[in-house]
Amino acid sequence: MTLTVLFAATPALWEEFSAALSHAFADAGLDAALVLQADPAAVDYIVYAPSSPLEDFTPYTRCKAVLSLWAGVERIVGNQTLTMPLCRMVDPGLTEGMVEWVVGHTLRHHLGMDRHIVNPGQVWDPTCPPLARERPVAMLGMGALGTACAQALRALHFPVTGWSRTAKEVPGIPCLHGEDGLRQALSTAQIVVTLMPKTPETENTLNAERLSWLPQGAVILNPGRGALIDDDALLAALDTGAVGHATLDVFRVEPLPADHRYWTHPRVTVTPHIAADTRPSSASRMVAENIRRGEAGEPFVNLVDRVRGY
Amino acid sequence: MTLTVLFAATPALWEEFSAALSHAFADAGLDAALVLQADPAAVDYIVYAPSSPLEDFTPYTRCKAVLSLWAGVERIVGNQTLTMPLCRMVDPGLTEGMVEWVVGHTLRHHLGMDRHIVNPGQVWDPTCPPLARERPVAMLGMGALGTACAQALRALHFPVTGWSRTAKEVPGIPCLHGEDGLRQALSTAQIVVTLMPKTPETENTLNAERLSWLPQGAVILNPGRGALIDDDALLAALDTGAVGHATLDVFRVEPLPADHRYWTHPRVTVTPHIAADTRPSSASRMVAENIRRGEAGEPFVNLVDRVRGY
Repeated sequence: MTLTVLFAATPALWEEFSAALSHAFADAGLDAALVLQADPAAVDYIVYAPSSPLEDFTPYTRCKAVLSLWAGVERIVGNQTLTMPLCRMVDPGLTEGMVEWVVGHTLRHHLGMDRHIVNPGQVWDPTCPPLARERPVAMLGMGALGTACAQALRALHFPVTGWSRTAKEVPGIPCLHGEDGLRQALSTAQIVVTLMPKTPETENTLNAERLSWLPQGAVILNPGRGALIDDDALLAALDTGAVGHATLDVFRVEPLPADHRYWTHPRVTVTPHIAADTRPSSASRMVAENIRRGEAGEPFVNLVDRVRGY
Repeated sequence: MTLTVLFAATPALWEEFSAALSHAFADAGLDAALVLQADPAAVDYIVYAPSSPLEDFTPYTRCKAVLSLWAGVERIVGNQTLTMPLCRMVDPGLTEGMVEWVVGHTLRHHLGMDRHIVNPGQVWDPTCPPLARERPVAMLGMGALGTACAQALRALHFPVTGWSRTAKEVPGIPCLHGEDGLRQALSTAQIVVTLMPKTPETENTLNAERLSWLPQGAVILNPGRGALIDDDALLAALDTGAVGHATLDVFRVEPLPADHRYWTHPRVTVTPHIAADTRPSSASRMVAENIRRGEAGEPFVNLVDRVRGY
């Protein structure tokens, strides 16, 4: 019998995903119809993005899983009507894009590129930067994305310390956890990357006190979630130069409002939430794989833990 | 008997290297004195940089090898008085620095960072760049440095094609050679890195004709030698946008003269010959290792082929 897969997202995402999803369903051998509307009681799976107007999952009595197109599920995880399994997107294309953004901006700050990109005084100063092996990096958040970024930076010889709220072991990356671990990771880091999920526990992870643990002039990269950083505390630290630069890809309000100080602060670079975008082809293969698993009675991959919130 | 090692370079390099070399000699178990002056007939080895006034090697009748502190030996390889073995510097620190510069600037152009670093209009355009796996790179020159850079880019999923004058095999990197191979490598490359030695054969490798083989808007990175590129041809291609950007670390005259068009061209970034600098500690270990080999009757490493010129 043909499966009914409801696409609950914006028309723009339909444009982007409908062909890729149908293609991936066929490749996975699934007899599945991707639809924009259906009798809720007849829906087998929901492909979901937070831009969808769908808020009440109660009528979807037959739905076996909600499959998010996004890695971050903070807008949906607390929905009490969503009682079926919820899966996050862990898209290999998204991971690769994130690694490229993090490695690229780490090297940009490491090499001091900005002074060459904008050099109206034609300054020729052949002072070499230190080697990457002399530039400690702290990776806050050691999930799939943080781990991939940490390993890519390690391959370039950056000494990377991982940190997460609970203890983790990752091959080749020394990992710390808890408040003491955070202090230790921040106190030696010249570059800090914040790549945690947004949960009540991770909000304002970088607050005024913890920012004060960083060495003078450290650089912050935030491709995770805007709420991980206390914006006022960061701006104060940037004003004094205690934090040397912040390159931010995510914000509490997006697009970043035109009057926000981040736009004009000389020590801030704004990138427009491009560090990690779900790629239709690889993301669709992940969705199809989870539907295949659901039909075969196998466990879903990237199942969200409702208690942790991701 | 104590070996006499003549340091033939500038006083500035003496400041930088004398302690590191003496330390490396001791670590290698060598009984060697590093000196700035000596009876030429009593010198066992010469540590050399092209900034040295030493031009006539004839009186150094006992000298077993000239050990260059620099990777590029074009200023000395044609010296007819230099009849003893000549070794280039292949410094692991230099290689790491080169990989960092090449990967960093490749990612900078790949991600389109410049438009975020300088964004006075506060443009928020969340269009994602393609993935690295969709951005072909051509690496011209597959020596130690080119190979290391190609492999680092490959690890980030860039499809890298290597090219060298003569056929080479490098694990994981498809390699082309000769004029047909160059045309093939350039015709699909969105980013081209020139990392060959400077020899009569490599001068103006990127001339007007070969630049015309590139896809519209391709980016050129030159951390190799200034003479690899025909400057007038490159400027003409930049003027029309046929070449989208050039990030250049090396020039025919350095420092780059104040009135050179590269300084002010909107599609050019000048970096001040910082892509690869010899690092005293690791370079000194290489020098000590070659002296140890010379004393033990073992073959020197990184011996220059006088016919090839490097």
